[in-house]
Amino acid sequence: MINVGVIGCGYWGPNIVRNFRQIDNCNLKWCSDLSESRIKHMKGLYPSIKFTKDYNDILNDKEIGAVVIATPVSTHFKIGMDALMKGKHILIEKPITHSSEDAKKLIDAAAKNKKILMVDHTMEYSPAVKKIKEYIEKGELGQVLTVDMIRVNLGVFQKDVNVIWDLIPHDISILVYLLGLMPEKVISVGESYIQKSIEDDAHLTLKFKNKITAHIHVSWLDPCKIRKTTIVGRKKMLVFDDLEPTEKIRVYDKGVTIEKNGIPIQNYYDTFGEYQLLHRSGDIFIPKIETTEPLNNMCRHFLDCIENGKTPVSDGQSGLRVVRVVEAAQESLRNNSREVEIRAD
Amino acid sequence: MINVGVIGCGYWGPNIVRNFRQIDNCNLKWCSDLSESRIKHMKGLYPSIKFTKDYNDILNDKEIGAVVIATPVSTHFKIGMDALMKGKHILIEKPITHSSEDAKKLIDAAAKNKKILMVDHTMEYSPAVKKIKEYIEKGELGQVLTVDMIRVNLGVFQKDVNVIWDLIPHDISILVYLLGLMPEKVISVGESYIQKSIEDDAHLTLKFKNKITAHIHVSWLDPCKIRKTTIVGRKKMLVFDDLEPTEKIRVYDKGVTIEKNGIPIQNYYDTFGEYQLLHRSGDIFIPKIETTEPLNNMCRHFLDCIENGKTPVSDGQSGLRVVRVVEAAQESLRNNSREVEIRAD
Amino acid sequence: MINVGVIGCGYWGPNIVRNFRQIDNCNLKWCSDLSESRIKHMKGLYPSIKFTKDYNDILNDKEIGAVVIATPVSTHFKIGMDALMKGKHILIEKPITHSSEDAKKLIDAAAKNKKILMVDHTMEYSPAVKKIKEYIEKGELGQVLTVDMIRVNLGVFQKDVNVIWDLIPHDISILVYLLGLMPEKVISVGESYIQKSIEDDAHLTLKFKNKITAHIHVSWLDPCKIRKTTIVGRKKMLVFDDLEPTEKIRVYDKGVTIEKNGIPIQNYYDTFGEYQLLHRSGDIFIPKIETTEPLNNMCRHFLDCIENGKTPVSDGQSGLRVVRVVEAAQESLRNNSREVEIRAD
Amino acid sequence: MINVGVIGCGYWGPNIVRNFRQIDNCNLKWCSDLSESRIKHMKGLYPSIKFTKDYNDILNDKEIGAVVIATPVSTHFKIGMDALMKGKHILIEKPITHSSEDAKKLIDAAAKNKKILMVDHTMEYSPAVKKIKEYIEKGELGQVLTVDMIRVNLGVFQKDVNVIWDLIPHDISILVYLLGLMPEKVISVGESYIQKSIEDDAHLTLKFKNKITAHIHVSWLDPCKIRKTTIVGRKKMLVFDDLEPTEKIRVYDKGVTIEKNGIPIQNYYDTFGEYQLLHRSGDIFIPKIETTEPLNNMCRHFLDCIENGKTPVSDGQSGLRVVRVVEAAQESLRNNSREVEIRAD
Repeated sequence: MINVGVIGCGYWGPNIVRNFRQIDNCNLKWCSDLSESRIKHMKGLYPSIKFTKDYNDILNDKEIGAVVIATPVSTHFKIGMDALMKGKHILIEKPITHSSEDAKKLIDAAAKNKKILMVDHTMEYSPAVKKIKEYIEKGELGQVLTVDMIRVNLGVFQKDVNVIWDLIPHDISILVYLLGLMPEKVISVGESYIQKSIEDDAHLTLKFKNKITAHIHVSWLDPCKIRKTTIVGRKKMLVFDDLEPTEKIRVYDKGVTIEKNGIPIQNYYDTFGEYQLLHRSGDIFIPKIETTEPLNNMCRHFLDCIENGKTPVSDGQSGLRVVRVVEAAQESLRNNSREVEIRAD
Repeated sequence: MINVGVIGCGYWGPNIVRNFRQIDNCNLKWCSDLSESRIKHMKGLYPSIKFTKDYNDILNDKEIGAVVIATPVSTHFKIGMDALMKGKHILIEKPITHSSEDAKKLIDAAAKNKKILMVDHTMEYSPAVKKIKEYIEKGELGQVLTVDMIRVNLGVFQKDVNVIWDLIPHDISILVYLLGLMPEKVISVGESYIQKSIEDDAHLTLKFKNKITAHIHVSWLDPCKIRKTTIVGRKKMLVFDDLEPTEKIRVYDKGVTIEKNGIPIQNYYDTFGEYQLLHRSGDIFIPKIETTEPLNNMCRHFLDCIENGKTPVSDGQSGLRVVRVVEAAQESLRNNSREVEIRAD
Repeated sequence: MINVGVIGCGYWGPNIVRNFRQIDNCNLKWCSDLSESRIKHMKGLYPSIKFTKDYNDILNDKEIGAVVIATPVSTHFKIGMDALMKGKHILIEKPITHSSEDAKKLIDAAAKNKKILMVDHTMEYSPAVKKIKEYIEKGELGQVLTVDMIRVNLGVFQKDVNVIWDLIPHDISILVYLLGLMPEKVISVGESYIQKSIEDDAHLTLKFKNKITAHIHVSWLDPCKIRKTTIVGRKKMLVFDDLEPTEKIRVYDKGVTIEKNGIPIQNYYDTFGEYQLLHRSGDIFIPKIETTEPLNNMCRHFLDCIENGKTPVSDGQSGLRVVRVVEAAQESLRNNSREVEIRAD
Repeated sequence: MINVGVIGCGYWGPNIVRNFRQIDNCNLKWCSDLSESRIKHMKGLYPSIKFTKDYNDILNDKEIGAVVIATPVSTHFKIGMDALMKGKHILIEKPITHSSEDAKKLIDAAAKNKKILMVDHTMEYSPAVKKIKEYIEKGELGQVLTVDMIRVNLGVFQKDVNVIWDLIPHDISILVYLLGLMPEKVISVGESYIQKSIEDDAHLTLKFKNKITAHIHVSWLDPCKIRKTTIVGRKKMLVFDDLEPTEKIRVYDKGVTIEKNGIPIQNYYDTFGEYQLLHRSGDIFIPKIETTEPLNNMCRHFLDCIENGKTPVSDGQSGLRVVRVVEAAQESLRNNSREVEIRAD
């Protein structure tokens, strides 16, 4: 039975708390938050948990084996280091840190202390995303050509990071997980409409090997909440709408067939000539998706990694990769949308 | 009673024919097409119309007062010039020409010959787009901050122009009409997945005065047909979905209010301090929109301009503006998405 | 080449005209209507067709082989008889007549004169309905238990017949076609809110053999247009939404499994004991449906029957069956919703 | 601070527990359930609550002021009586009892013991339903003509009551609340497809004063979950979709205008003559609805009634009215859908 502490009970923390409480083989012993009112609120919901304003109370409790860090991004590095130094396994909210330098230091510290360092890339634990990975790996969609992602809604406006830091970690972690590839270049455009110098709307183009590209639109300034990913494969196309309660994935048996004079074009590809593009538009398939909550799967995986010495799916390296993409996107943004190379691991 | 001829009965021509046939004060006398099978098909539908493979037969008919040019883009300039030289008023499919040079020559020729030169920017005649313009002009949305446009579906793949030339004229003409502004700069990214060197998927960012930006996604390679425009104003937000049969426009009484310690931020705007962003999320309003077909309105406007010597809403200059944006977008595309200035008229 | 005449160019007639015009192996020679303004309107669209106010002009034309009767229900019988007497094949709008007596006389007259008598039960020619019939016949859905049909919208209010006469012929013809069974009993409730004594909203329950029931809601008084049929089978469930442009049919792999202590209940069905009802909720499948217009298929089938001496799918008997159900529904309505037996053929 | 006990932690009980736990001015002290596994499950979630298999332990605790009865319908009467006899205020799940006789006895016992007797007609505490009541009372919709309600999905199959007992209490309580009228007559049809003699699909027609009718479709056997109410008023129409997360209510500015020769028909209503029915189809309005959970409002109202001696909105009489309608519906069902009069209070 692992004793767990949660540092930060603001926007996301309560979801972490709720999930660890529902898991049998752990004991959520401590929570901390800087705000009295948050502590009061949480205490009302969970009278049996201990609360403190000082996260060191948690780190100093020798019974605590693991801590979850759900605080603002700028504090991730320091709290993470403190926790590792006290011998705790750590689970950090995305993005892992505000710089790749810091991410690397955390990775090193975790390795040296032989502790689990995991990042909460929740989407990698989504049954729908796993299903999509299966489809891609089985070749169901054919070669993936392009991916289009939309993650927009009105607010929540962050004050310390822009919308890119806030939202694209989800999309990057999905992309890298699904394609098994890191993007190599990024072009990003964005604008700050509401807060000075904090972009609230951005569009990114990511370029991968084999001419695969992905486009991501993130915004805090859209009247409709949208969480949509469109994957165009050479054989089939797939749309993932994460807001659909039960019909998250639609597989379209649609594609383009290239012909010449009725004869499949591949035979004549080198010759010069007119060809016709036939659109094939067939059935649509909506697979049943397991309904477990991604966050719950993620929490269980963290405990499983601790108990069985496994490497997390979303480990420190995974967190670092996301930060590298965000940093390059920021660089492009600051340089008039110039194309920027993304450093590999 | 104006006698009208239609040159080109391929993809869009039949819609032109159908509409002119439904209008009382004109007589659709001639149609031409290079393809025998298209002529045979159209003859079956309209036995009282005269058909020819040679459009000069139409231009040489002295009874013909106006011609519509619904042929591939690359032929617009020559046919347009021929028609003007023969003293016909002309209505040209979008985009007006394949270069701004040619567009200017057509404009000059029309002026010199005192003929109407109109471009089929159909969307400017859409009752929904007119309604949106009313909202913007009345200040209903407040200052427009950003516009996001999606125009995607599977096919129709063009063979002589890429997806930018094919689809963004609609969006540019809507934007310029709604905002009353030309975009000043453009960044465009795109990729050709199916046909070599003909982009089938592209994302454009347009920058206007006052930090207004617009983003356009056009694609021939998406499983779902989408025609959606989101306009974010400082007071309200509006979504225009042109595929909705009756509920094309939704006005969201949503916005962001900037406060500081509960006191409206405007009083403290220059001071340094923490502020809070309140999201306001209110009622949604779906106005009743007139159901006349935009194309029908456009055809009637063309005849009205001829008969009453009016300047068309979508005149040659309007056509030229669209081509200037497309040319700049192409330049950006060919230069690794570098930001390109758009020439003013 | 059959010469065709269309009698009645009001609400539905123009659709008939448009379709026969698009078919090669026939010539739409004549149209009639009592209203000058309708004739003028139609003449504008089809200058090559002959128009008259007196349908006898059509019947007296010896070149005319077939007529379509698209007039108000109350006139179907007389015009139908006149046409048969003049040796014309006839296609009559649904419902065939306003009484089963009249329907039988028409059937007899057609048989005696060896002419085709067909009723425009358009839905039996819908590719979607055909697809559903295939699913049922292949046993894909398992035994059909119940069918729920909704056919509502605002207007078009008829003045000579109530909403039952107006709308349920569609649903009855679908049901009889799909199930291969006539309903045996009907209970109907309805109310007249807008016009005195002309019901504008009604609910019918139809009982078939084997405890199969169907429920139909028809209304002229609903803010939303709905055309939806839900078929509950023992193995799967199917929803047919005729307003969906491309996704008309959804097959739900859903059902109920009856178990007792983990052992399938059927073994223990007669014993006394607690059992558990497991809901099975699986994938959803949206088949690609051919996009030909049902009305066009219907028109072609009429011509095919004439030329090749075939019996129409929706022949006079089929028309009579629908009238029998409507008559019984009316009787139930007039008798405080008492259950009424429906006469078999 | 009222101490509360919850009897029954099956399907609905956990929602009751969750809500009372979130309310400050009460203490959820006890829960009971007959099933060990349910108790174990609940204990895991709420370690600070006391659990028992015998509800008498709760009734015998003198600190307990109020109990919630969330057990199967057949046990409501006995447990309710026991609780009232022990001097507890009671909140009972709908329907209040399985017979109107029992409901009246409970009402009398509560009155005699001066205790609050409230029924969990959750929907009467829904902000959306309150909004609709406002619209009706302000005359926004004009005179209500007819109401159509659909409450269907796959399962949850009850074993002691049929789908009418299970589901229509929601709809009846909404109708009586909105219209301020009791239905006077009911016709009901239903069928048992899955369990012998337990109807799983039913359609009811309720007749009120002034020719107002309501139709309710309830089913455990539909592939789609639907919770929809359509209210047709003489001026406007309203659709309430309780599954919509934010857009629960749509007000359609639609209606029928009766005219004669262009002059409003009301002047000529008694004369004989042709009139025209004009459909008016205008804007749609989606009001912002408060997002508090109806169940939470209901729980707070119960505590408020106890503390301040108020009469609950959904008191015993309200519960009795619902049971009277259900009893009449059952009688109609058992008598071949004969129209049955509903006893007034």
